[in-house]
Amino acid sequence: MGERLRKASIVGITGYTGLELLRLLQAHPHVQIAHVTSRQNEGEALGVLYPHLAHLDLKITNPSYEQLAKDSDIVFLALPHKTAQDAVAALHGKVKVIDLSADYRLDDVKTYEKYYCAHNHPELLKEIVYGLPEINREAIKGAQSVANPGCFALLSQLMLFPYAGHLEAVDIMAVTGSSGAGKSPVEGTHHPVRSHNMKSYNINKHRHIPEILRTAQLPEDRLNFVPTSGPFTRGIFATAFVRTKTMPTKCSTEIYKDSSFVRIMKEVSLANVVGSNFCDIAYTMVEENNFIAQGAIDNLVKGAAGCAVQNMNLMCGWDETTGLDILSPVYP
Amino acid sequence: MGERLRKASIVGITGYTGLELLRLLQAHPHVQIAHVTSRQNEGEALGVLYPHLAHLDLKITNPSYEQLAKDSDIVFLALPHKTAQDAVAALHGKVKVIDLSADYRLDDVKTYEKYYCAHNHPELLKEIVYGLPEINREAIKGAQSVANPGCFALLSQLMLFPYAGHLEAVDIMAVTGSSGAGKSPVEGTHHPVRSHNMKSYNINKHRHIPEILRTAQLPEDRLNFVPTSGPFTRGIFATAFVRTKTMPTKCSTEIYKDSSFVRIMKEVSLANVVGSNFCDIAYTMVEENNFIAQGAIDNLVKGAAGCAVQNMNLMCGWDETTGLDILSPVYP
Amino acid sequence: MGERLRKASIVGITGYTGLELLRLLQAHPHVQIAHVTSRQNEGEALGVLYPHLAHLDLKITNPSYEQLAKDSDIVFLALPHKTAQDAVAALHGKVKVIDLSADYRLDDVKTYEKYYCAHNHPELLKEIVYGLPEINREAIKGAQSVANPGCFALLSQLMLFPYAGHLEAVDIMAVTGSSGAGKSPVEGTHHPVRSHNMKSYNINKHRHIPEILRTAQLPEDRLNFVPTSGPFTRGIFATAFVRTKTMPTKCSTEIYKDSSFVRIMKEVSLANVVGSNFCDIAYTMVEENNFIAQGAIDNLVKGAAGCAVQNMNLMCGWDETTGLDILSPVYP
Amino acid sequence: MGERLRKASIVGITGYTGLELLRLLQAHPHVQIAHVTSRQNEGEALGVLYPHLAHLDLKITNPSYEQLAKDSDIVFLALPHKTAQDAVAALHGKVKVIDLSADYRLDDVKTYEKYYCAHNHPELLKEIVYGLPEINREAIKGAQSVANPGCFALLSQLMLFPYAGHLEAVDIMAVTGSSGAGKSPVEGTHHPVRSHNMKSYNINKHRHIPEILRTAQLPEDRLNFVPTSGPFTRGIFATAFVRTKTMPTKCSTEIYKDSSFVRIMKEVSLANVVGSNFCDIAYTMVEENNFIAQGAIDNLVKGAAGCAVQNMNLMCGWDETTGLDILSPVYP
Repeated sequence: MGERLRKASIVGITGYTGLELLRLLQAHPHVQIAHVTSRQNEGEALGVLYPHLAHLDLKITNPSYEQLAKDSDIVFLALPHKTAQDAVAALHGKVKVIDLSADYRLDDVKTYEKYYCAHNHPELLKEIVYGLPEINREAIKGAQSVANPGCFALLSQLMLFPYAGHLEAVDIMAVTGSSGAGKSPVEGTHHPVRSHNMKSYNINKHRHIPEILRTAQLPEDRLNFVPTSGPFTRGIFATAFVRTKTMPTKCSTEIYKDSSFVRIMKEVSLANVVGSNFCDIAYTMVEENNFIAQGAIDNLVKGAAGCAVQNMNLMCGWDETTGLDILSPVYP
Repeated sequence: MGERLRKASIVGITGYTGLELLRLLQAHPHVQIAHVTSRQNEGEALGVLYPHLAHLDLKITNPSYEQLAKDSDIVFLALPHKTAQDAVAALHGKVKVIDLSADYRLDDVKTYEKYYCAHNHPELLKEIVYGLPEINREAIKGAQSVANPGCFALLSQLMLFPYAGHLEAVDIMAVTGSSGAGKSPVEGTHHPVRSHNMKSYNINKHRHIPEILRTAQLPEDRLNFVPTSGPFTRGIFATAFVRTKTMPTKCSTEIYKDSSFVRIMKEVSLANVVGSNFCDIAYTMVEENNFIAQGAIDNLVKGAAGCAVQNMNLMCGWDETTGLDILSPVYP
Repeated sequence: MGERLRKASIVGITGYTGLELLRLLQAHPHVQIAHVTSRQNEGEALGVLYPHLAHLDLKITNPSYEQLAKDSDIVFLALPHKTAQDAVAALHGKVKVIDLSADYRLDDVKTYEKYYCAHNHPELLKEIVYGLPEINREAIKGAQSVANPGCFALLSQLMLFPYAGHLEAVDIMAVTGSSGAGKSPVEGTHHPVRSHNMKSYNINKHRHIPEILRTAQLPEDRLNFVPTSGPFTRGIFATAFVRTKTMPTKCSTEIYKDSSFVRIMKEVSLANVVGSNFCDIAYTMVEENNFIAQGAIDNLVKGAAGCAVQNMNLMCGWDETTGLDILSPVYP
Repeated sequence: MGERLRKASIVGITGYTGLELLRLLQAHPHVQIAHVTSRQNEGEALGVLYPHLAHLDLKITNPSYEQLAKDSDIVFLALPHKTAQDAVAALHGKVKVIDLSADYRLDDVKTYEKYYCAHNHPELLKEIVYGLPEINREAIKGAQSVANPGCFALLSQLMLFPYAGHLEAVDIMAVTGSSGAGKSPVEGTHHPVRSHNMKSYNINKHRHIPEILRTAQLPEDRLNFVPTSGPFTRGIFATAFVRTKTMPTKCSTEIYKDSSFVRIMKEVSLANVVGSNFCDIAYTMVEENNFIAQGAIDNLVKGAAGCAVQNMNLMCGWDETTGLDILSPVYP
């Protein structure tokens, strides 16, 4: 290795995204953990709060942004949207920042404010690089701060990207596991019902829609998006019915030939990606200008923490797969 | 009640459909069980083979068709397709027959032979009535023999029927529970993978497609149908993206106003129908001539045994809901 | 039927026990629903609050106890413990009462106050009959008010009752489904973890212990009781390691020969009882004075609502199985 | 690293144990894969047979033992019991062997033949070292061939080992996930039933019993062992009711102080270990000479492949945790 270990901090360790970042970072060969933070649980031992981490000797801190920047080479923000607005603004330029919230995913303030809320730092929106490596790799390599994509949005974009600019209309039905709803128990994650239920929500209103439209080069009224809760813990399984105006000259295999984590398959099976950073995609041609695309990711890995680590690798000049290639799918 | 109990027999008791028929029939006020049959398990006590039925004193028989017709007022055939061809032919006209196989669902022999196999009794195809009560109620009332719809087909038809004749193109993604695969363990129902998996199969090739096309009045190339395995035991949850040429004058609420088991809902949740004969449907309008329909049934009840009992009720002149209205959804 | 329908009310309709009572009562041939009540949801349509009941035309009420007694022949109390103390006191003697809370299960106020809280009506403790039909049938038949057993307690008692008075020491490990925790989402029922977890809680401190001790005729320090959360929705599966001082002369089959809902099996499988009122029990003899007992119930049926309906049947002079024998196990 | 990579082969790659070995070995810093073998699938691409491994460029081979020994530094045998008898005999002494079958776990041929079948190489039984690192570390370090423990046996031993020699009687109820049954679909792993079932099997007859008895220093009639199928994929959750004659002077924390993978906890939660090599154990004291022990492992990691890698580490002189400490629990 020889190389000095970089110091990484996770702001917001207590959520599922923060915990998954820690799972990946502690297996990463070039990284050591600097801070794991939480405002609410400052001072507690992480292993007491989360007994699955009982073997780790990590204390939860709550440093100022200055301290955080001083103690870290890279900061991962695993905060709720809105909260991350000021955090990114405070850290941007002082340390490498990877923001897993929604706050800097969109570069247009009007769209952001339509789907989310008021933005305190609209001037930064165009400065923070959109962190979808397979689509935006070069920009990420040179970025100081990166906005990690939404989980539904990442999968949908990787499915549609090879057809961007050629699309006529797209209908997506995407089923997500319960970990996507976060660590706080709510009605929709109550086991007695969730364990054998399916239910859609926010049809055509989900906040990940504008990310998809931008990459797919589709107007809003040409996309139907049906997010659906499924009775499993990890993963997203998406089906897209696609109409194109024209067909691209490059096929998906060609487009993703340097993207180790995108696997173009004959068919997609959610269980094949769980625990790993892979995004599996299959295309079933129906007729000229009409096909069905299916895709699967682990929402906490490729849909969040894994993509963030991939972004870190690019920002630090490491091979994109470092510390991620050792994560085989946990099968069965 | 006063009324004489009718004698019902279940041919093929050992499959999940046969067992579910028994669950419903033993709760039916006008019916008593005559035969429960199986070629393979003749002579065995049903409660030994299936200990959840240990309280029943029922012996598995294997009577000739003559005996069966003599001992029964109604015969339910829960046999694999192809096997039921001759069974229906042998019993038709001698006793009321409700065939839960696929063998008499289609009235066109060419379509049947394209999707299934050769048919020994093509002359009967037009004589056996298609048993979807909400769409074909009057014909069922006068029928001697009825062909119960396929589970995917039943749900899709009930979702599309109010728009039949107006449809331009339909894309359906339908997720089914593992009980739909039957009682024999196969790779696709192996728990270690199925428990957290989603996977589509037979895309645009599923055998239930022609039933849907006929009712929806759609040509084959205007329907995409994506059957998908889900990680739960009972139920089908379907999402249809629908384009219409024109809009019907009667709305779904109007069309189903006398159909107690179809509930037009604001949103559909699979858990709301499990264990019951309900079919829940919700329509989300997107724009002129474009909407999203969602529907849910219990595949073993409304998708098989419940619909069969509903058909029996109609054929016997009883209220359609007899013995089915006491089945509330098993929630949670 | 001829017989006049009796009017039954469910106080506390919004919990899982209340809902399950409604599922059973609406299938009961001798009963009609008078009130379904909730303080919090008064005036709402039940089918709006719980869309799986959308077909029912029932409005939630909040009547005074006087009104309730006037409008009902039987009142089921599905309230939290403590709340039921006064409710039973207000209704006792005015109407048949079946209390599904813990408040009148114990006849000794000291034991109640040790495990629960202060009791406002200790004088009633010995007057309310313990509602475990298989053990206390005759007393229930003559009772005005009955206290329905706890779910863990019911199963454990039925497993141990044939050996009561002969026991030396008993160790029980009992796994419960998530519906046992009620309808409010909490950490222990959060799907992302519960779906693949097992975890014990309140070891040797669970509130159902004194009910078991009383029936088993065991001192407190001769019972270890390990309640455990399992990753399923409905059911309790219990394993007891039993040491006896002597062996009884009557065997379990003999003791339960008139108890239709207790099935003495060769082996116990939880899936065999789900949805039904059955309690399956198997005994594996190890050596003289040492055996292993296993048992299974649906916690919401035999462990709550089903047992309550069985008590109602006895209190009303009907056959114990009325309205319950039509509930076959929902298999698979 | 500097150190030369060692060549490891997996004999029997197509089972769940073989696949899990590959998951761990491909993340191990000192190892490269030599052969992955299967008699039935020789010549196939592993990624075609198992699409979750589509990214790997590995072909399934079927080399002779000579070739295998020549091409490998370490051979893992993931074969059914009986088949491994000759395989170990052929390879022992020529290459480091880690046998994950049951064939060399017992050193007494009579006990082996009582629980399994005839043994072709009884003379080797005492030569192959029992591979439970926490109990037998020094012998493993010097071993040429090691027999990996059974999954139930490993967990039970780690729970009881601190009390070995002091035990009076032990009753164990242990629940296992469906992956423990292997990759072939059978009735007991059929999803429609397994998904919400619990069922015990082979009570007091399970083949892992003699391993437990030997370590616990218990006669056969002092142990009740109830193996139970649970409705989850990965993991074993065991509860032991323990009576001791005397209490040991060293406590469990002391005994396991150098064993990184054993975590003595206040309480045990299965989800805390899934995906990792940890074994969590908690002891609840009841009274003098009576306590309840609970433990949890991932059956495919600590219960099989992880323990095997730990054995490899010891046999190769590496730190016991190499390549295993990067496997955090996959939570949630």
